[in-house]
Amino acid sequence: MSYNKMPSITAETINPKVRMFTYEPCGEIVRHARLLEQEIYDNPGSLPFQEIIYCNLGNPQALGQQPINFFREVLSLCDNPPLIYRDEARALFSACALKRANRILESLPAKDSGSYTSSQGVRSLRQVVADGIAARDGFPSRAEDIFLTDGASSAINMMMQILIRSPEDSILCPLPEYPLYSGSIILHGGTMVPYYLTEDNGWGLEIFEVKRCLEDARASGLTVRAMVVINPGNPTGQVLSMTSQEEIVEFCRKEGLVILADEVYQDNVYTENKKFNSFKKVARSLGYDQEDLSVVSFHSVSMGYYGECGRRGGYMEICGFGSEVIDEIYKLSSLTICPNIAGQILISLIMDPPKLGDESFETFMTEKEETYSSLLKSAKTLQKAFSSLEGVSCNKFEGAMYLFPRLRLPPLAIRAAELEGVSPDVFYAHRLLGATGIAVVPGSGFHPVSGTSHIRCTILPGEEKIAAMVPRLRAFHEAFMEEFRG
Amino acid sequence: MSYNKMPSITAETINPKVRMFTYEPCGEIVRHARLLEQEIYDNPGSLPFQEIIYCNLGNPQALGQQPINFFREVLSLCDNPPLIYRDEARALFSACALKRANRILESLPAKDSGSYTSSQGVRSLRQVVADGIAARDGFPSRAEDIFLTDGASSAINMMMQILIRSPEDSILCPLPEYPLYSGSIILHGGTMVPYYLTEDNGWGLEIFEVKRCLEDARASGLTVRAMVVINPGNPTGQVLSMTSQEEIVEFCRKEGLVILADEVYQDNVYTENKKFNSFKKVARSLGYDQEDLSVVSFHSVSMGYYGECGRRGGYMEICGFGSEVIDEIYKLSSLTICPNIAGQILISLIMDPPKLGDESFETFMTEKEETYSSLLKSAKTLQKAFSSLEGVSCNKFEGAMYLFPRLRLPPLAIRAAELEGVSPDVFYAHRLLGATGIAVVPGSGFHPVSGTSHIRCTILPGEEKIAAMVPRLRAFHEAFMEEFRG
Repeated sequence: MSYNKMPSITAETINPKVRMFTYEPCGEIVRHARLLEQEIYDNPGSLPFQEIIYCNLGNPQALGQQPINFFREVLSLCDNPPLIYRDEARALFSACALKRANRILESLPAKDSGSYTSSQGVRSLRQVVADGIAARDGFPSRAEDIFLTDGASSAINMMMQILIRSPEDSILCPLPEYPLYSGSIILHGGTMVPYYLTEDNGWGLEIFEVKRCLEDARASGLTVRAMVVINPGNPTGQVLSMTSQEEIVEFCRKEGLVILADEVYQDNVYTENKKFNSFKKVARSLGYDQEDLSVVSFHSVSMGYYGECGRRGGYMEICGFGSEVIDEIYKLSSLTICPNIAGQILISLIMDPPKLGDESFETFMTEKEETYSSLLKSAKTLQKAFSSLEGVSCNKFEGAMYLFPRLRLPPLAIRAAELEGVSPDVFYAHRLLGATGIAVVPGSGFHPVSGTSHIRCTILPGEEKIAAMVPRLRAFHEAFMEEFRG
Repeated sequence: MSYNKMPSITAETINPKVRMFTYEPCGEIVRHARLLEQEIYDNPGSLPFQEIIYCNLGNPQALGQQPINFFREVLSLCDNPPLIYRDEARALFSACALKRANRILESLPAKDSGSYTSSQGVRSLRQVVADGIAARDGFPSRAEDIFLTDGASSAINMMMQILIRSPEDSILCPLPEYPLYSGSIILHGGTMVPYYLTEDNGWGLEIFEVKRCLEDARASGLTVRAMVVINPGNPTGQVLSMTSQEEIVEFCRKEGLVILADEVYQDNVYTENKKFNSFKKVARSLGYDQEDLSVVSFHSVSMGYYGECGRRGGYMEICGFGSEVIDEIYKLSSLTICPNIAGQILISLIMDPPKLGDESFETFMTEKEETYSSLLKSAKTLQKAFSSLEGVSCNKFEGAMYLFPRLRLPPLAIRAAELEGVSPDVFYAHRLLGATGIAVVPGSGFHPVSGTSHIRCTILPGEEKIAAMVPRLRAFHEAFMEEFRG
């Protein structure tokens, strides 16, 4: 008998579905950035920049966005309930936060934050979320349709697990897409049916294109079960028009497709003439109810003016599924027992923030507006900078947290990328990182039309840093174009 | 064209793998208990008891176990970093907690708890966990082998996703088992190969039985990839002997199986003559290193003297996998971006609690010892009570949080269960709940030898409540036996 000095599990012997998908926002570019960061630490001054600017991920607070004080106060008190009864706490916490934390704790199992909750989330917190949705949309929402989740990603994974039975089961997804979708569909053994957004139309959605993709998919024997819509768009930064949303609702209703509505950027809309409308609201406005159409809305604590990524909180509202399906989703979520309590509390705060008349209201509004105005200024500066670069065109920024400029690179650069065995956007992004410390995600990670090159750059680094970034970006780009002009 | 007034997604059209598994600890018995709870609330006095005692789940703090103050202080401060610099905070937080929170915050992205972290967890916190493992085991542990996770459940799901490629891929699991294992294996499309623990031998593991199961599985064409061991045992309460652990290590090494070591009850051992040994320690003690054997150890913040279930924190230590596999696990975990930060912080505190000389040490030790001594007393009282009932035999309690008494019910009770279309243990558990408000899990939810009946009852409700439970349990059981004596 011989024992090989080899690990028994190798990359060749794991689940090939895991190997198959790619997830670039946390992928190769981050690995490269971490190496450079280590180099700066080990050999200060050895690189032409002093720090890495992580524009690869929508990670607001990592890039300087300030947390909302009220939210943090409530979390802090819920972690340590005895504080509420201490006189000294009044010097450290607002009366508002003390009151809210007390109300939340009263409704938790054992009046504390240390227990498992229902796998669906604490009933009272789900009620707060449902009430917040009803107030936002002007249509009723029920606590029993709400699942609190560890961020939107785990909710989306759960719905893919519910919907996908075999490789024939497929999901319509926009391209460019947030690669969680392709990743999750591949992982759960289904097929992604892409529909292309139209870059020349501000990354708008054309319903005839979606219809064509559906028909092609059906003709090739696929069972299309759902349509993913990301609104506001990631990576495109587009906010759907009401007409587009109505077309999508009519289409999905007629074709019996579930709408999987990624609405995590609902509090990141910056354009005067568009506002966020949830797909459920659009469906109800058209007169469709639970029996007419299935809609799942995903939301998260990670984006918006709150940006609490580290907490992993969120909800999904599930409308138009049979109650037996809800029971199965409940069972599926019970396999990880329950979502984390801080995330549950935080999503309830976001859906029910301080109101006019509350002691914390003014501070809250100031903090919120400062964040918005800073994001808007940053976006404008960056958009102008990208647009001014040779061979670069940049979409109009309407929502979410990203710019997705298109690069038209010289043939010699494309050739140089080929020689390195990578696509031109990957080549460009790594060169940019190596020269400036600015980490962006190569557009190919979001699977846009092949033959085009983009990068995704978040608007989050804050006005000061962006002001410092722009000349470095410009200098790099000019040198790059010069080098490959031929 | 006709639109059916029917939800497009029904229980018949979802992924059958979701429908297929059962997860009883949060299942039917809980639904029944919640109904009764509502009834008590709506019509006080209408039932023969005033409250439900949830003995179905290892949910310590829900049943009165007190949190460790130091842990809560640190979490509270990390939620609200400005507190650290406020003089008033010194009246509310120990110097120890202020110091630790400060150290943790200094090592987080943007020195705050609001950002996404590495998908593997914060590097500095992983280092603390690795150092804690090294101190516990006396063998080195590396931060790069540690993945911080949202509780052990999500880690176990992740490993099943990595290991299972097709229905032929199978995993050896103990029976009775914690049903997360069967659930997760079914969900990810693999096959569970059960091996039976020996009730007459205190639920011990006989390696020849495991070997027989492996050989049968291989003979039927299955590829067995891993062996799950739960130590201390759930639901059995057994702590494996060193001899058993060594046999398992030798067996898995020889057969090329990954050891999936569920070690979440490592701080719940109550017997004088046994102690917890991690499988990695046993492997290293036998002279086997990373190249000889693959071992994954799962741990959690939910059990032990800490019992912080609501936080969803944990780690897995992955030894003996190729670095390419680690990269794939990283990518898989990046699909949900990162584990929640409170859980990450808490598992680091558990692996590095206050030490002799720290200001918080004495309080910490008192809290910890009070919890242990209370659990031990509770276990003894409950074990004695179950053992004294007619037709009931109860295992010796060594570890974890459960008793798993065996019921030998009268033929007429078995017949009555048949008439209701349920198994005798389910019949008994629902009758017990309806008569006393005590919720236990029917043993069939843990898949023991068929033809035997058990219930799983946690020891957690606290000495006072258990003292009140015992006479109700006894009265119910006597009446039940009387009713079905025939």
